[in-house]
Amino acid sequence: MSSSPGSAGVVTPQAYHFEQPLALQSGASIAGYTLMLETYGSLNADKSNAVLICHALNASHHVAGYYADQPKNIGWWDNMVGPGKAVDTDRFFVIGINNLGSCFGSTGPMHTNPATGKPYGAEFPVVTVEDWVQAQARVADRLGITQFAAVMGGSLGGMQALAWSMLFPERLRHCVVIASTARLSAQNIAFNDVARQAILTDPDFHGGDFYAHGVLPRNGLRVARMIGHITYLSDDDMAEKFGRDLRNGDYQFGYGVDFEIESYLRYQGDKFSDYFDANTYLLITKALDYFDPARQFGGDLSRALAHTKAKFLLASFTTDWRFSPERSREIVRALLSNKRTVSYAEIDAPHGHDAFLLDDARYLNLVAAYFNNIAREFA
Amino acid sequence: MSSSPGSAGVVTPQAYHFEQPLALQSGASIAGYTLMLETYGSLNADKSNAVLICHALNASHHVAGYYADQPKNIGWWDNMVGPGKAVDTDRFFVIGINNLGSCFGSTGPMHTNPATGKPYGAEFPVVTVEDWVQAQARVADRLGITQFAAVMGGSLGGMQALAWSMLFPERLRHCVVIASTARLSAQNIAFNDVARQAILTDPDFHGGDFYAHGVLPRNGLRVARMIGHITYLSDDDMAEKFGRDLRNGDYQFGYGVDFEIESYLRYQGDKFSDYFDANTYLLITKALDYFDPARQFGGDLSRALAHTKAKFLLASFTTDWRFSPERSREIVRALLSNKRTVSYAEIDAPHGHDAFLLDDARYLNLVAAYFNNIAREFA
Repeated sequence: MSSSPGSAGVVTPQAYHFEQPLALQSGASIAGYTLMLETYGSLNADKSNAVLICHALNASHHVAGYYADQPKNIGWWDNMVGPGKAVDTDRFFVIGINNLGSCFGSTGPMHTNPATGKPYGAEFPVVTVEDWVQAQARVADRLGITQFAAVMGGSLGGMQALAWSMLFPERLRHCVVIASTARLSAQNIAFNDVARQAILTDPDFHGGDFYAHGVLPRNGLRVARMIGHITYLSDDDMAEKFGRDLRNGDYQFGYGVDFEIESYLRYQGDKFSDYFDANTYLLITKALDYFDPARQFGGDLSRALAHTKAKFLLASFTTDWRFSPERSREIVRALLSNKRTVSYAEIDAPHGHDAFLLDDARYLNLVAAYFNNIAREFA
Repeated sequence: MSSSPGSAGVVTPQAYHFEQPLALQSGASIAGYTLMLETYGSLNADKSNAVLICHALNASHHVAGYYADQPKNIGWWDNMVGPGKAVDTDRFFVIGINNLGSCFGSTGPMHTNPATGKPYGAEFPVVTVEDWVQAQARVADRLGITQFAAVMGGSLGGMQALAWSMLFPERLRHCVVIASTARLSAQNIAFNDVARQAILTDPDFHGGDFYAHGVLPRNGLRVARMIGHITYLSDDDMAEKFGRDLRNGDYQFGYGVDFEIESYLRYQGDKFSDYFDANTYLLITKALDYFDPARQFGGDLSRALAHTKAKFLLASFTTDWRFSPERSREIVRALLSNKRTVSYAEIDAPHGHDAFLLDDARYLNLVAAYFNNIAREFA
């Protein structure tokens, strides 16, 4: 194997097709659908070492390793998952699944709606975190995994892990929720809605039917991403990395690039608008907004978590202002009120929300230690 | 006079025309220009009771009172300025000036460029906070005011007050800087640039020449305003006012309005895009980004403020995350290092940046007490 030390090496995504319709929380259903997935490591004989990694807004099933024909296309959590890494693929069988409605191969808005013979566009049903979990459970069924050693995710991925603990309490021994929240705040929703409005009002969006028009709502998607990106970074980190540094030494007195931060954000926006689907952006931000497991319990998160059985690891980052540590503490308190076993770490990291994706020794060591303990359960 | 108690009553804006070109910081100059202004109260015999109120992004010369034909069109700081109010127009002669480049009557991008015979559009020169102060000084000259009792402003208006203290140290006895900063952070600039990008990439913007096309870049301006508005409110205040309240009792599973916060922000965006000029939005956000008096002193704010002579009042609000109290404290420290007389109040208010415009007894009493002391100087 040609992998470098610590890398999951060459990986090959697989397409799993499901014929049975999936009933969605909205009341709609998806007829037949495909989910893309990748796996790393080997499933042990009693299928007790499986770890499901759930992805956030713009990520995919490509969690770790790289593709034979794209050696630079490295998985989004490659620093976390691999042989000898925190989630050690020498011991765990790790699964990444691209969520329904995303734009990396799983059935989504750009695919043909069998009912109309045309791409779904904005008619793709709004899916929820719970819908994703139901779809993921079918993957587990097919793989014969009745219980995960752990379900894990950061941000929106953490919401999926949390939903697993509530929807399928018997099917996971550990639930790892990083930089996440049990519900978005009004401010979180506000940022998501402005981003959606930028897309929805882009004339090239064509009501979601832009595929047929041969255009992409790049401007809207670009602005949406720029807004999102600001919320992923901390004020301090931005000050540290960019400050008021000028691109060309002096003010230009025009509307081109003056500051390095402008150049950086515009670049991020441009790049994103090249590869991300606008309808996917809409529906994933809606899944974020809608997640609120306490809602059916009168807002009581403790009651929502009452039937969970997993042990929990939660982690948050001090400078994350999108999903601040208080949002994790709220989950911790609700779990403790149910006498669940909870480990919680508040990590003093400068990188804001994005910290959950970055290298930070304390953070990675924390997860490594936790998974080391999990491995002892079946070793 | 038909004014209600405490109101400055019926006011009439005046247009002041200036023939002499104004040299701008950019190196460009404005040929002839008009500034709209309003005054409240009476200038005393020795012209020692004048107070200049500087406005922020979307405000104007209409600081207080109302118009005879528009009784509901009340000035933006009417709660602060009027007979018996914190800035008491029974004692002070208060002036509001619409800044150059704004869209409420003063010469701006929608007016004819004498060089081309067409509207300036995005060719209107980028003006700075210091340029505005130079233009305001000419108004003072015309009124025969050699020294203001105070120059005062909140947010961007506070920057103008601060610039007055540096550019014309002899021309103000007091400088009142509320919810402001001596320079934007990278995050502040980032939000401004995303807003500008939303406008610049709106196809109806036409490179700033939308006047000739009979359209308005409403979508861009709307998104710009929604972004701005999020930063004016505090997370807590938004949670308190809107939380996760739903507009129609349940999730709609579409991209219309689900949450009250969405309805509120879209309404704010719609309203703003009806009355505000897109080119003005661009240039005023640039003025915000460019303000950085310490820049020519190697970033040393203390040196930038070394030649000020005014006494200072600074106030900040605990939940203001746009220009947090730390940004005011930074100015206070730089002033104290120069042994200036500084009063500083950090007001525990829930309303974020917008608090500087709102009724808060501690805040208004603080300003009232300060101006009461100023009045003693000439009474």
